[in-house]
Amino acid sequence: MSELDKILNIDKDSTAKSFKKGEFIQKPDETTANAIFVKKGLIRSYIIDNSGKEHIYMFASEGWITGDIEAVEFNEPTKLYIDCLEDSEIVLIKKDHVSDVNMTKEQMLNNMQKIWRNIAKLQNRILLLIGSPAVDRYNNFLETYPELPNRVPQKMIASYLGITPEALSTIRSKLAKRK
Amino acid sequence: MSELDKILNIDKDSTAKSFKKGEFIQKPDETTANAIFVKKGLIRSYIIDNSGKEHIYMFASEGWITGDIEAVEFNEPTKLYIDCLEDSEIVLIKKDHVSDVNMTKEQMLNNMQKIWRNIAKLQNRILLLIGSPAVDRYNNFLETYPELPNRVPQKMIASYLGITPEALSTIRSKLAKRK
Repeated sequence: MSELDKILNIDKDSTAKSFKKGEFIQKPDETTANAIFVKKGLIRSYIIDNSGKEHIYMFASEGWITGDIEAVEFNEPTKLYIDCLEDSEIVLIKKDHVSDVNMTKEQMLNNMQKIWRNIAKLQNRILLLIGSPAVDRYNNFLETYPELPNRVPQKMIASYLGITPEALSTIRSKLAKRK
Repeated sequence: MSELDKILNIDKDSTAKSFKKGEFIQKPDETTANAIFVKKGLIRSYIIDNSGKEHIYMFASEGWITGDIEAVEFNEPTKLYIDCLEDSEIVLIKKDHVSDVNMTKEQMLNNMQKIWRNIAKLQNRILLLIGSPAVDRYNNFLETYPELPNRVPQKMIASYLGITPEALSTIRSKLAKRK
């Protein structure tokens, strides 16, 4: 068992599952949801609005944990599409892997720490969405996901930022000139 | 000690502080940040963008816990303005009030549960911001804060939703006609 396996209380039944590029791990309106630990590869979660447009919620590459938290926590139908941008190996994490009465206090505190970090990231994403220009959102994307710019198509980065691919292209050439 | 005091591990030193309507609890670039439990009253947190426009991040009335999570968790300078929309009584909560090694496992699990709910709310806020029309965001506001429509000026609700007060007014009259 790795350190992370111990922390997440992942037992030997929680083997990694393999998904091909383009395959879906979850679609909206499913009745069961799990949090997802990415062992290898790259996945994204997104919604599609009433006009059919995709909006990317999160990317998750090696070492990230992601998921449809509202669905996992409240046993509500899923809201997110989650699919693979590369061939991926993931571990589905049940709720009691993160907070279970059989854990030690140390494990719980450790998990809580991770959860707080997650909240801080979400807060930051909201603040950027409501009050920051696209260039700041792009810089934050680069900080949050330093390994992704070469692995994700530009139009998906634009979708994550809430701007058009053309606007992203303008931002990138301005930043390139400054360097 | 109330049930909540026990859960949050608030000791007798954590007495409530009184703030007048309009008073600031926190401003950006302060070096210490606490989470805030609202005992009485109503507070809001917001940012001001480069053009001087206010964007409301959250409201918190009786029973809510709010704060500048990134600043609290990572000891970073604060980002948010937090002020009082009504005379308020609040308790400043240190980080170790939520996750402390002296807590029982039960308290920890209980707190974790609350934190998960918080994450679910933040996820939902992000999904609404990136992919939902203003009318859905307004309906979600009404669900999240059922007691607020009569306590908060329309222009602040509009700021929370990311729309103009005029657009909010149009949405409200459309919804009123449907009823």
